[in-house]
Amino acid sequence: MKPRVQARYWIETAYPLQDAAAIMAGEQSTGTFVRVPGETDELRELYAARVEQIVETGVVESPSLAGSGLPRAHSGPFTRRTAEVTLSWPLENMGPSLPNLLATVAGNLFELKPFSGLKLLDVTLPPAFLSRYQGPQFGVSGTRQLTGVYGRPVIGTILKPSVGMTPEQTAAQVKSLAEAGVDFIKDDELQADGPHCPFDQRVPAVLRVLEEFAQKTGKRPMYAANITGEIDQMLQRHDLVLAEGGTCVMVSLNSIGLPALTALRRHAQLAIHGHRNGWGMFSRSHATGMSFIAYQKFWRLAGIDHVHVNGLRNKFCEEDSSVIASARECLTPMFPAPHAGCEVMPVFSSGQSARQVPDTFRALGNGSSGCVDLIYACGGGILAHPQGASAGVRSLHQAWEAAAAGIPLPEYALQHAELRTALEAFIS
Amino acid sequence: MKPRVQARYWIETAYPLQDAAAIMAGEQSTGTFVRVPGETDELRELYAARVEQIVETGVVESPSLAGSGLPRAHSGPFTRRTAEVTLSWPLENMGPSLPNLLATVAGNLFELKPFSGLKLLDVTLPPAFLSRYQGPQFGVSGTRQLTGVYGRPVIGTILKPSVGMTPEQTAAQVKSLAEAGVDFIKDDELQADGPHCPFDQRVPAVLRVLEEFAQKTGKRPMYAANITGEIDQMLQRHDLVLAEGGTCVMVSLNSIGLPALTALRRHAQLAIHGHRNGWGMFSRSHATGMSFIAYQKFWRLAGIDHVHVNGLRNKFCEEDSSVIASARECLTPMFPAPHAGCEVMPVFSSGQSARQVPDTFRALGNGSSGCVDLIYACGGGILAHPQGASAGVRSLHQAWEAAAAGIPLPEYALQHAELRTALEAFIS
Repeated sequence: MKPRVQARYWIETAYPLQDAAAIMAGEQSTGTFVRVPGETDELRELYAARVEQIVETGVVESPSLAGSGLPRAHSGPFTRRTAEVTLSWPLENMGPSLPNLLATVAGNLFELKPFSGLKLLDVTLPPAFLSRYQGPQFGVSGTRQLTGVYGRPVIGTILKPSVGMTPEQTAAQVKSLAEAGVDFIKDDELQADGPHCPFDQRVPAVLRVLEEFAQKTGKRPMYAANITGEIDQMLQRHDLVLAEGGTCVMVSLNSIGLPALTALRRHAQLAIHGHRNGWGMFSRSHATGMSFIAYQKFWRLAGIDHVHVNGLRNKFCEEDSSVIASARECLTPMFPAPHAGCEVMPVFSSGQSARQVPDTFRALGNGSSGCVDLIYACGGGILAHPQGASAGVRSLHQAWEAAAAGIPLPEYALQHAELRTALEAFIS
Repeated sequence: MKPRVQARYWIETAYPLQDAAAIMAGEQSTGTFVRVPGETDELRELYAARVEQIVETGVVESPSLAGSGLPRAHSGPFTRRTAEVTLSWPLENMGPSLPNLLATVAGNLFELKPFSGLKLLDVTLPPAFLSRYQGPQFGVSGTRQLTGVYGRPVIGTILKPSVGMTPEQTAAQVKSLAEAGVDFIKDDELQADGPHCPFDQRVPAVLRVLEEFAQKTGKRPMYAANITGEIDQMLQRHDLVLAEGGTCVMVSLNSIGLPALTALRRHAQLAIHGHRNGWGMFSRSHATGMSFIAYQKFWRLAGIDHVHVNGLRNKFCEEDSSVIASARECLTPMFPAPHAGCEVMPVFSSGQSARQVPDTFRALGNGSSGCVDLIYACGGGILAHPQGASAGVRSLHQAWEAAAAGIPLPEYALQHAELRTALEAFIS
């Protein structure tokens, strides 16, 4: 059987569900608004998208989004329904090309007239995509090797304030964070190559500090240097990080696009840290956009090693259940064995401190066993610890020890001063 | 005064508007959720985003989007307001870099807790961006030169069915469309390089047909060949189009991202046709995402020559007023003289026929004079004309003549059979 691409959608429509699904399939394959000469039955049979499944999920009183239409034949009362619709396409239509896949499964669909809501929930791809795309080079195990961290999360932090520090100030902060014991340090997504803190000055300054630290201690924290920029800049910056002994580069995914990431991955000898800022545009409405489950598959295949998933009780609007579903998906193989699974390390971040550790550990695990395959990034949760950044890091180690041992944090905190202070200082 | 970047947003929040705006500014510049050491007053003064203006626009009963929060100090009743907020940033923070600008003005904002709605409405950039970005190479006047069309819109069409035709079938359709008199022919965004219709076979076949047609008639219709793919593929495909005598390449903007477009523009000797498919994800909700006004500025600066704006009474959910605002913006300079204005040609498309011509002409113009600086693309409106594609094209010429002369279509149709048939066949 010829390989096909599948996509699952949430829809809301006043049209009969069969008709609505057929309109989606037609629009995104062989159809137009008037059937044209050349659109033969044979051509439709071979290249038309297929409606694989329709599962009605409910009825709504009023449209989630304005501007949708009613069926032409409509007269009298109607019902506005929600459903999950699965479509499939022959891989022949677009080939194993991520940019063209995106135009097919997430192109001119969202604003089709029959829909008062339409969201892409998931995509399922044939392994043929692995012939073109390399997937993560390091993923979970490679990131552990590069950081030397085993048996617990990689404890990370974000350089703050996000912008405004000079290269020297940045390097000084990195020095103190390394001395504080963090495993992973990242630029803020707002800090890339602004004139007040040029990449070519900041990054060598930071990496020299980390080199000295590694010489002294044997431990080399991973620094995710934000290389976001034009393609030639990103490749040059990658090479500079490599030459200076760094192990990771960071990119803002929505800023650079899939082909730039694919090009970077082909070139890369370093881990690629994927930042999803701007993701709210896709996710914030329940009625349009794209789920993170679908979104991250594109980027994993293109080659990220880490991706941000927010965190429990974060400062954003995302619910904890969504955060956990996202993180678990990052660790779930995209393709069945013996193909590559393309698993990547989820990055927890946003208002995180020792507080959320036990819940994160349990929710990410299976049944009674927890999971520690993540980067646990804290900004204020480390830097604003009342006893300083070292104590902030220790409070996180203690929290993960407590979680792994199944001991409630308040109990473990009785014997661990830094954790105790963290629990007093960070209330969420 | 140091140059600054401005961005205007629509917001909906239960927070006091001043506080809400300050949170946006803090999050996207120097702030974090706990004030950290190093965030000095001097640093804030130099690098913090500034709240330039807050204009309250209304009060809402219930939140547009779920998941937002209430102010911490909240007790008792509160008011949920909407407002337009303008922020500004020192260009120092991100430099004239479109990917990093995007991470700043449209990064981790949309899902901030205080907001039950937040949409980017517009950006205003300092001309420093023109030192890095080339803007459109051809724009309106260059597209007229390449097509030889003056004094009326470039009449375009889309190859249909979108997918399923072989290279030879595609070339045959192009031949008949050229003979029918169209000025501009584009691949569908679903047709790029699928195994059943490979780019390297389709495009030479099509361009040979157009070369023969040009030899015979002196008229060379522009063919927008969909080169969407990886960066190396896009550059190679551009070169193939160039070598075969083509004049235009097309890319799906959301599929390729800004850096890939910038790289293509640096390399390009052909007009770049920008397709915005997937745009519904940004636009479909009034409460999140990005307006087309903001969106198109990024792509214009990066180098597109044409961009899709939908059309009047289209088959999508977009209102006519939004279509016209988008199209007018494409023709409005982005920077004041003597800097380049980066004007691009708006592409009207989606359910268009002779019917919408007079309204389009008037709405796009100023006062009593209309405007013809657009690509007017019809699929079924040409191909499904009952008397054939030639008559479809003639019906459009007649409609634009009528509009320019200020004669109502039904009146002009009395003397023009193709227009008369079009008005009978296409009812919207």
